[in-house]
Amino acid sequence: MKASLYQGNHTFTIEEKEIAAPAAGEVQIKVAYCGVCGTDVHIYHGMMDKRVRIPETIGHEMSGTIEAVGPEVTGYAVGEKVVVRPLDNRGEQASDKGFSHVCKKLKFIGIDSPGAMQQYWNVPAFTLHKLAKDTDLKLAALTEPLAVACHDVRLSELQAGEVAVVLGGGPIGMLVAMVAKSKGARVIISEVNPVRLKMANELGFETVNPAETDVLAFIEKETDGRLADVVFEVAGVQPTVDLMTEIAGIRGRIVMVAIHGQAKNVSLFQFFWKELKLIGARVYEPQDYDEAIDLITKNELPFESMITKVEPLTNIQQVFENIDKNPDGMKVLMDCQA
Amino acid sequence: MKASLYQGNHTFTIEEKEIAAPAAGEVQIKVAYCGVCGTDVHIYHGMMDKRVRIPETIGHEMSGTIEAVGPEVTGYAVGEKVVVRPLDNRGEQASDKGFSHVCKKLKFIGIDSPGAMQQYWNVPAFTLHKLAKDTDLKLAALTEPLAVACHDVRLSELQAGEVAVVLGGGPIGMLVAMVAKSKGARVIISEVNPVRLKMANELGFETVNPAETDVLAFIEKETDGRLADVVFEVAGVQPTVDLMTEIAGIRGRIVMVAIHGQAKNVSLFQFFWKELKLIGARVYEPQDYDEAIDLITKNELPFESMITKVEPLTNIQQVFENIDKNPDGMKVLMDCQA
Repeated sequence: MKASLYQGNHTFTIEEKEIAAPAAGEVQIKVAYCGVCGTDVHIYHGMMDKRVRIPETIGHEMSGTIEAVGPEVTGYAVGEKVVVRPLDNRGEQASDKGFSHVCKKLKFIGIDSPGAMQQYWNVPAFTLHKLAKDTDLKLAALTEPLAVACHDVRLSELQAGEVAVVLGGGPIGMLVAMVAKSKGARVIISEVNPVRLKMANELGFETVNPAETDVLAFIEKETDGRLADVVFEVAGVQPTVDLMTEIAGIRGRIVMVAIHGQAKNVSLFQFFWKELKLIGARVYEPQDYDEAIDLITKNELPFESMITKVEPLTNIQQVFENIDKNPDGMKVLMDCQA
Repeated sequence: MKASLYQGNHTFTIEEKEIAAPAAGEVQIKVAYCGVCGTDVHIYHGMMDKRVRIPETIGHEMSGTIEAVGPEVTGYAVGEKVVVRPLDNRGEQASDKGFSHVCKKLKFIGIDSPGAMQQYWNVPAFTLHKLAKDTDLKLAALTEPLAVACHDVRLSELQAGEVAVVLGGGPIGMLVAMVAKSKGARVIISEVNPVRLKMANELGFETVNPAETDVLAFIEKETDGRLADVVFEVAGVQPTVDLMTEIAGIRGRIVMVAIHGQAKNVSLFQFFWKELKLIGARVYEPQDYDEAIDLITKNELPFESMITKVEPLTNIQQVFENIDKNPDGMKVLMDCQA
């Protein structure tokens, strides 16, 4: 089979490998599609070389079909369509208080262990979620990032009729916006990239460009002074951290979706003054996967528009090079059988 | 009657004034005791001269007895013991979403309008909470800061058996610690002042001194790696902001009690990574006052120990000068009839 390998130094290779039989408790998946996550791009940039064991097959935003079932696995059959929830919580301890998905010794499959950017992939059966027979496997490759969005929106406790502002209209921001809108909220996306703004508008979202408009004044006017009930900080930069506390109304909730590598200046006074809440949100819990799969199955949201391109796995090097050249793109999928 | 007046320039005067009859909707209170709040000290330092209308009678941590009932007031009688919840929400709007206590146009009585550091004080009847007949009016002057503590602990959703760390062992920190302990939590106070540490120990609290001990290592060891379930940030300085995200365990809640005049560096990564929550908490809601009064009435917590000194109102200038000289003190009350 073909497997891609991250070799460090901005380099992926494609290797021919033996297909290993699934071990006890494992299932072998014939990977259909694997999306490129921001984290994968981070790995490609060498930012995670201390964490990733090089050479390594990465990738975790996938869909596929069960090819073989290992010993001691029940409830799964060859041919079933599945997605993997790439969280290995086998190091979970009492001090994690039952929050498996963010347990201290969590291993993320596709970063800390081999990922999906290969033809066949053996994973622990406990990571699987089944898909309906007629699920489009291209759309299903969006399950993982969509589950992130479902988790973010769920933790925000967003209610129908509330105003949600999404700071950052990249792939996760756009999925958060879609899920938030599906809950009956009014959703405004704040983004500086004109191509992404155009896409957001075409998808029916209200938008604001902080490079051109005073976002606080805009939100104030649009909401008759109520301001945002929920803010999703998905951009990860100081200007959005400044904005998030300004545009949140009284008892507003701010969901911290972005990964801030550096500490940021935060107006703690605003938290006190308006009794704001900051809610950290990371990955997903099983119910978020269930919700994401349900949304993909129903296919009532504009998921198709999220897929910028589908490329053969064998083009992986070019795929990552092109992502760097094109800041406008949304989700690139790799066809792992091509 | 005697009334104190803040005159700006670190100066209080005592004036002889006519006793004004309570207007419609008002009640006249014969003020028994009035505590000195950190905010009052802030005013004395000239930090709020833009907000306070000089000369002004300040003060809001009070207890007293109804002396006269104005027109259109029902349900109150002369001689009843009361405390005032010093929040004037008469400017409340729809955009405040019903959160009267932090409404945008909130006026704080004793800062934005005349306060309790005088013999007789007219206040809107809607600010009153009745006390039991045999309530100790000295202890009752602690109701307002105690209600702050009740509010903070309520918003933290602290459960019995959880570990709460209070960063800062001043008057509010100590009251937060007492209320948290009364909920069945294990409470650890982090404080650098040796006198306050000693007092905290004498009151039965576990303590840690960040000037001498690695607080993170200490909390980690004490909790078998679980870390704090709830952190109350009451100190308002960068080192405690650094500590708060470090010592909070998975899904830990951090309550922002302190007033941070300046933006602080915050590890937003920790919020993401451990799915922490930051909860802004300001003043109190009526139910917090009810809880505080209930605690004062039962008098099972060491409230007596909170009162460092009782001074006649006529000594007000000296009282504020001494507070500046003595960073160890807890709560100074003024006897407003002396």
